[in-house]
Order: sequence, then structure tokens, then C-alpha cells
Amino acid sequence: MTPEEFRLAGHELIDWIADYRSNVEQRPVRAQVDPGQVRAAFSTSPPQSPMSADQLLRDIEQKIVPGITQVQHPMHYGWFPSNASLASTLGDIASSGLGTLGISWESCPALTEVEEVVCDWMRQLTGLSDSWEGCIQDTASTACLTALLIARERASDYSETRGGLQAEDKPLLVYTTEEAHSSVAKAALLAGFGRDNLRMVPMVEESRAMSGPALASQIEADFAAGYLPCAIVASVGSTGVTAFDPVNEIVEIAVEHGIWVHVDAAMAGSAMLLPECRHLWEGVELADSISWNPHKWMGTILDCSLLYVRDVQHLVRVMSTNPSYLRSTVDAEVKQYRDWGIPLGRRFRALKLWYHLSVDGIDAIRERLRRDLDNAQWFAEQVARQEHWQVLTPVKLQTVCIRHQPPGLSGEALDRHTLGWVNAINQSGKAFMSPSQLDGRWMVRVSIGVEASTRAHLEKLWNLIRAQAEEVVQG
Amino acid sequence: MTPEEFRLAGHELIDWIADYRSNVEQRPVRAQVDPGQVRAAFSTSPPQSPMSADQLLRDIEQKIVPGITQVQHPMHYGWFPSNASLASTLGDIASSGLGTLGISWESCPALTEVEEVVCDWMRQLTGLSDSWEGCIQDTASTACLTALLIARERASDYSETRGGLQAEDKPLLVYTTEEAHSSVAKAALLAGFGRDNLRMVPMVEESRAMSGPALASQIEADFAAGYLPCAIVASVGSTGVTAFDPVNEIVEIAVEHGIWVHVDAAMAGSAMLLPECRHLWEGVELADSISWNPHKWMGTILDCSLLYVRDVQHLVRVMSTNPSYLRSTVDAEVKQYRDWGIPLGRRFRALKLWYHLSVDGIDAIRERLRRDLDNAQWFAEQVARQEHWQVLTPVKLQTVCIRHQPPGLSGEALDRHTLGWVNAINQSGKAFMSPSQLDGRWMVRVSIGVEASTRAHLEKLWNLIRAQAEEVVQG
Repeated sequence: MTPEEFRLAGHELIDWIADYRSNVEQRPVRAQVDPGQVRAAFSTSPPQSPMSADQLLRDIEQKIVPGITQVQHPMHYGWFPSNASLASTLGDIASSGLGTLGISWESCPALTEVEEVVCDWMRQLTGLSDSWEGCIQDTASTACLTALLIARERASDYSETRGGLQAEDKPLLVYTTEEAHSSVAKAALLAGFGRDNLRMVPMVEESRAMSGPALASQIEADFAAGYLPCAIVASVGSTGVTAFDPVNEIVEIAVEHGIWVHVDAAMAGSAMLLPECRHLWEGVELADSISWNPHKWMGTILDCSLLYVRDVQHLVRVMSTNPSYLRSTVDAEVKQYRDWGIPLGRRFRALKLWYHLSVDGIDAIRERLRRDLDNAQWFAEQVARQEHWQVLTPVKLQTVCIRHQPPGLSGEALDRHTLGWVNAINQSGKAFMSPSQLDGRWMVRVSIGVEASTRAHLEKLWNLIRAQAEEVVQG
Repeated sequence: MTPEEFRLAGHELIDWIADYRSNVEQRPVRAQVDPGQVRAAFSTSPPQSPMSADQLLRDIEQKIVPGITQVQHPMHYGWFPSNASLASTLGDIASSGLGTLGISWESCPALTEVEEVVCDWMRQLTGLSDSWEGCIQDTASTACLTALLIARERASDYSETRGGLQAEDKPLLVYTTEEAHSSVAKAALLAGFGRDNLRMVPMVEESRAMSGPALASQIEADFAAGYLPCAIVASVGSTGVTAFDPVNEIVEIAVEHGIWVHVDAAMAGSAMLLPECRHLWEGVELADSISWNPHKWMGTILDCSLLYVRDVQHLVRVMSTNPSYLRSTVDAEVKQYRDWGIPLGRRFRALKLWYHLSVDGIDAIRERLRRDLDNAQWFAEQVARQEHWQVLTPVKLQTVCIRHQPPGLSGEALDRHTLGWVNAINQSGKAFMSPSQLDGRWMVRVSIGVEASTRAHLEKLWNLIRAQAEEVVQG
């Protein structure tokens, strides 16, 4: 494809995208396709002769779009807000257009330095001190694995340079809670700790936050039994019920024993853009690493996960490689982001964050986040004041966990009822919410915060939910 | 930013990209900026009030572009070809425009199923049997780590479910060569094996390929000494000198002992699109995992690394998480790519591969690869026939390793001469090549294969090199 062909096809694509994004609300929220249906629309063998970009755009419209769950839809309340603001989308397009290669500072000085700039802007905007330095990773899962790997190496005095984790005498332990995101356990297992060495610390019942005293006594017991406590992963706004582990209590215990603290604020990091929310991670300055995803509620298009550390030297020591073909004369003066994580090569991800902050502006972003917090409180009030409806956990941010419990229903029958009404709405395409489990029983998470979701959409949602759940019971 | 604002700004951006890509050749190849220069062009504090997309485009032109090393430039012969074909760029733009979320099949059925389709197309196009299934990862570094993690779990009978790698009695070993990419050692260290348990197998002198007999005897000796050989990473087209480890010999040894074989064909995988090159990885069907990067020589825009495995069940068992909030009623019938690697969320990367294959077409891609192979042979001939010039290693694909050795120069003086002429050219911005070490001495890698590089560009390069190197000596 020549630049002129690209120009023509690019203009058509931009128009199509603008129309598509304008009309999201006309589409069903959840993709209305069966398993295998999209795949069956494509040839099983590779294309034999070239097709026009026009044809591909028609295929996107006809074959692909029906298979997309519309997470930009104002009636999407599933999983978490996965906003892809158009400003950040434009930045992402610029990144593609530039066609850069990020494998060393020299391969694209701008890629490295703009990433430094925007990560520092984000540090300032979330109220972190300048003892933190950040980089962009793909996801919080990868950031958590990275954190546990460097925690492992600090606790083992760089066992990677000798016999590895497998040669260590004292079993290294990781602490988190059952409420933590599944990626935490996955990271601990991939890092080689083993499930037996992953301690699920008891939680405070109502808040589902890690219990500070329980953590302290578990760690004491583990030291006494000959284990080596290595890392604590604190959830700041858990995925399930937006639980906040008490970072200040955790760091106090950790600092005493030299244990690594990773703060997983994947979802709730966006809230730290609001000064009034920062009490929720009080104590964070004494943690060792923090990750959170602008690609969630804040609205920078996926993938964009921030990882901050205080001890960059340590991170780089664990992660660095320095092959001769990547050396240059200025290496001593520059940052090499390949030594800040697992992948060697990186896209120019900083552009989408730069566009988002510069074009939308931080004031508008903050205003929207506050709107979502208000909407969540409003929604929770509607539910709480309605007979037979419950808000199950404190609404700390923008997620409301609800259940409809008609008289006489409990146990598995209640589960069937819950899954019945939520699946009926999800299947209808009118709205989408995530059924999720709380203490082994199904409930429904209403995760508010799509850029296009207004109060009117929430009113519509509440009417839809009531009609569906209460009708099922009456029927 | 509203869809209509996006439309206007998007059209301007597309025009700018088309112009930019048309004019790459007018820019210096290597970025002509000093460390910190791009950073200094940006404010140290975040933008206080919104800016227009126009302003950002001007900033890209004035502040960012000077800080980009032009890897799409026809005179770029550094590191490896990092082609970002415009067809694939368009697909990447479509991915951004759609704003999808890939965390489960349900979150975007099309994202999962188009990835299945294109990975299978790529399998067919590289002549792999249908016993392989693939997915797209960000980089070969991540793919290699993933492979070593699942190798570790197979060898340890899923130690992750018990005490982890740290509880294993027999030290697990990984085998590769000094010629392997630095990401292999990094992956082994991150996976917890430890440097002492990474065996650098001796190589055949001229080819720098792993010696099959040396591997066999090392493994025998290790078993006898009570170690547990776990994985072999075979380089198929190494980064340094395009060495090809003998996959057929390696798998024969590995199969006998149940050792995992990961084939790292990051760069040379593109050559497997050409049937005449497939003898270079003969035996690959008996390996356990393969990764290669369409985002290199083939030209699908970064990031796009393929990982194929034969035993998907095993991969998924090691990597899977199944939190309640991500479950759906069709889980048994669909693929969950979150269980195929480290990150949970993924972009719709399949689109760029789909666009590349469909719009450019496989015939044109193959024709270009063959052109590059011819050009490399032609270039090597020019060098070899010139007095005092050497082609240092066999030219198996598109990389030519050269040195100018004037009479009387050797050792450190020769190193100074080599670095002198290559750095002078690199600094001039007229062309770019990678100085690299071979047996402790500097040489220059000329990595041919940028989409825009024609024979005429190579002629120009050869004249430039001779003038610079021979003039330095005369001067």
C-alpha cells in the first residue's frame, strides 16, 4: 500500500470511525453472536489475492462489529469502565502512523522521553511525591508480575545471578487477600512462589479489606516458622467490591520487616486524580511499587497501565540486558525502558496519554470522574430505598454491588433468580452488567463510569433492572 | 473530544501521516537529538488548559519527529527491519478506532475469533502442520518467558500448585547458546531458574550454531549429576549473526528425555513464509513452542509477535485464571486468550495482521522478502570481492556482518577503526547500521530488509561505507 492509497483509505476509515463512535448507542451492548459465528464468516485459508481497503471496511461493518461487545456504550456497566476517549484514540493513531521502534533510547529518543514526561505528569496529577518514577506497561497483570519478580530478587539478594529461586533455602512468601484480583495469584504462581506460599490474609468482614492485625500476626508466625515473607500485594479498589486494603497499616508492618509492598490500584488509580479520594491509599508513599490503569475509568485507550517504583536502580538491575548490538555512546545519560519490564520492544504508548491529557484536559477528566461518583451514590440510594433490594457492600467509588431478594428466596434459588434477571438483560443487548460472586453467592456488579453514561442512562438502567427482576418473580 | 471533532482532527492526522511516510527519505536516519532534548521541549508540569489537536500535530512535527530514528527509512540497516507496512498501519488504526476490550471471549467475540483465524492463516503460510495453535503476544521476549514458564511447570509436574519452583529438589536446567538473544537469558532468570542453571552449549565455530553432540553430552552429564534438564531454547536466525541452531538434532535429543524445546525465530520466522527457506528450521514439528515476529522483517506494525504451541491444554492449565466476574454461559465453547499468556487484557491486534495479509497480499510480501535475500547476497559479494574487506559470517538471510581490516590494523586499533567509520556514518544521518561484537571484537551488522530499501539504496550504502572507512585510513 502506497502513502497515497493509505491517504484515501485512511480518510474513509476516519469517517467510518467517527460515525461508529457516534452511533454506539444504537447497537446492542453485548455482542449478539454465538461462539464460532465470527470465525465462520472468514475463510479458513489465507487470502489468495489482494483485497481493497474498502472491502475490509465492509467486512468490519458486517462481520466484525456484530461480534463486538460495546464497552463504549452508555448502557455498559460490566466488568469495569474501559473508556477509549477519542482524544486518546487520536494519540494512538498517531503512534501507529509514526511507525516507530522502541528497543533503546537511540531507536527512538522521543518515545523514551515523552514517556518520561507523561509518566511524571501522571505522578503529579495523582499526588505522588517525586521519589517515584514510572513507565507504561500493557496491563496491571504484567505490572504485578514485574513487581513480584523484583520483590523476589530483593528478598533473595538477587538469586537470579546464582541458583535462582529454586536454590533458596527459606520459602519466600507472598501475602494478599481472597478479594485481590485473580492476576495477583497468577503472578505469584508464575514468579515461582507456588500456591502453598501464597498467604490469603483474613479480611475485615464488612469492607473486605485486608486486616492489618491479621497480617501482622501471620507474618510473625511465618518468620517464627522459618519462612521468608517477601511481598505484600495491597488491593486499592478491588475488582469485586472495590475493597481498599489499609495501605498505611500494611506499609508500617512491611517497613519493619523489609517486605516489598506492591499497590494494585488497577481500577481505583483513576480516583487518585481527585484529591478528595487520596485518603483511600493513605500510606502509599512508603510502598515499593504501584500500578494502575489509565485505560480503565480515566479513559486512555487500552493498553496503558502505569507502573511506578521508588528504587529504579533495583528494578533495572533485575530486568536489564545489555547486548552489544543495542549499545550506544550515550547509554550512561539516558533511560532504557527495555530494562523496566519484560518485553524488549515497545510501542509509542505515551502519545495516547499525552493526547488525552492535552486535548481533553485534566479539568474535564476530573469533572467526569466526579459525575460518575455522584451517579454511583444516586444509584445506590435508589436501590437501597427499594423494598427487597440490597446494596451489598459500601460504595466507595463507582461500583455498586446489588441483589434483589424477594421474600422466601435464598440459597441456590436466589442464585438462580439473580442470574436469571441479569442474564436476561445482558442477552437483550439493552444493558450489560457483570454477575459476580460474593461469599459464594451470585450478585450483580453495576460498574458505572463509561464516558457516555449520564444520569438519564442510569435512570433507564434502574427501570430496566426493576422491571426484569420484579417481573420474573411476579411471573 | 466529540466524534465530529475527532473526524476533523483525524482527517488532518491521516494527511499528515501520509505526507510523513512519503517523505521519510528526506529525514536523517538516526535521530539527531541529544539526550534530554526532546524532554526539555515539553513542560515539566501537566497541561493546565486544553490544547487543540492542531497544536499537538505541530508539536509532533517540531518536537517529536526530530527525536525519531527513522526505521522506515530505506537507508536504515540497523538492528533488524522493523517494517510498519501501511496496510498493517491501517489495521492498527481500525483497532484503535473500534475501542474494544479483550479480557474474555464475551468482552469481544470478534477480537478472539479473528485472532484465531489470522494465527491459523499464518500457520498455514509458514508451512506448519495443524497440530499447532497460535496467539499474538507483544514481543518475542514475552513469548520466550511464557514458554519457559510452561516448560518449568511441565518438568516440575505443576509445582506452581504446590510449593513452587523454590520447593523443587532437583535443579531445573535451561539450555541455549551465547549466540541466543539476550531475552533468552533474561527469561530464564525471570522464570527463577538462576544463572547457574542456564547452560551455554558450545557452538560450531564457523556457523555459531548450537552443537548437537555438545548438547547431547551436556544433557547426559547433567542427568548423571542429579540435575533435571527442563528446556532448550533454539535460535532460528540469531540476532547477532543469523545463526541457525540445528532444530532437527535438538528435538531428537529433547524428545528422548522429555525436554521442552522453544524455537526462537523472532527475526527469521518471516523467512518461513518462503518454502525454500524452511529447511532452516527442519525438525520444528517436534518442538513444543515457536515464536516469531511479523513486526520485524515481514512488516506487520509493532507489536505483533506470534506464539504457537502444540499442547494448548498445558499452556492454559499453567496460565489460566477464572474469576467469577469473567465467567459466561458459553465458556466451554470458546477460547479465552487471557489464559494463553501473562496479560489479562489485550488490544485487537489481529486486525493489523488481517489488513496486512489481505491488502498487501501474501504474493507481494513474499516477493519483497525474496528481493531482500537477493540484495543481501549482492551486497555480501561486493564486500567480499573488495580488498581488505571481510564478510565475517555466512549470509543465510538478509543480514551481512562485515569488517574493514586495513593492513596492519588489529586488536583494539581495529575496534577503534570499526567504531570510527560506522559511528561517523550513523551520526551523519545518511545511513544507520549496528555495530555489534563477534568474539569480543567489533564488527558491523548490515541488516537489510526495510520495505523501501532497493538495490539502488544498497549501492549508495556501499559507496558511503567505502568512502568513510577507506578515507579514515588514508586520512
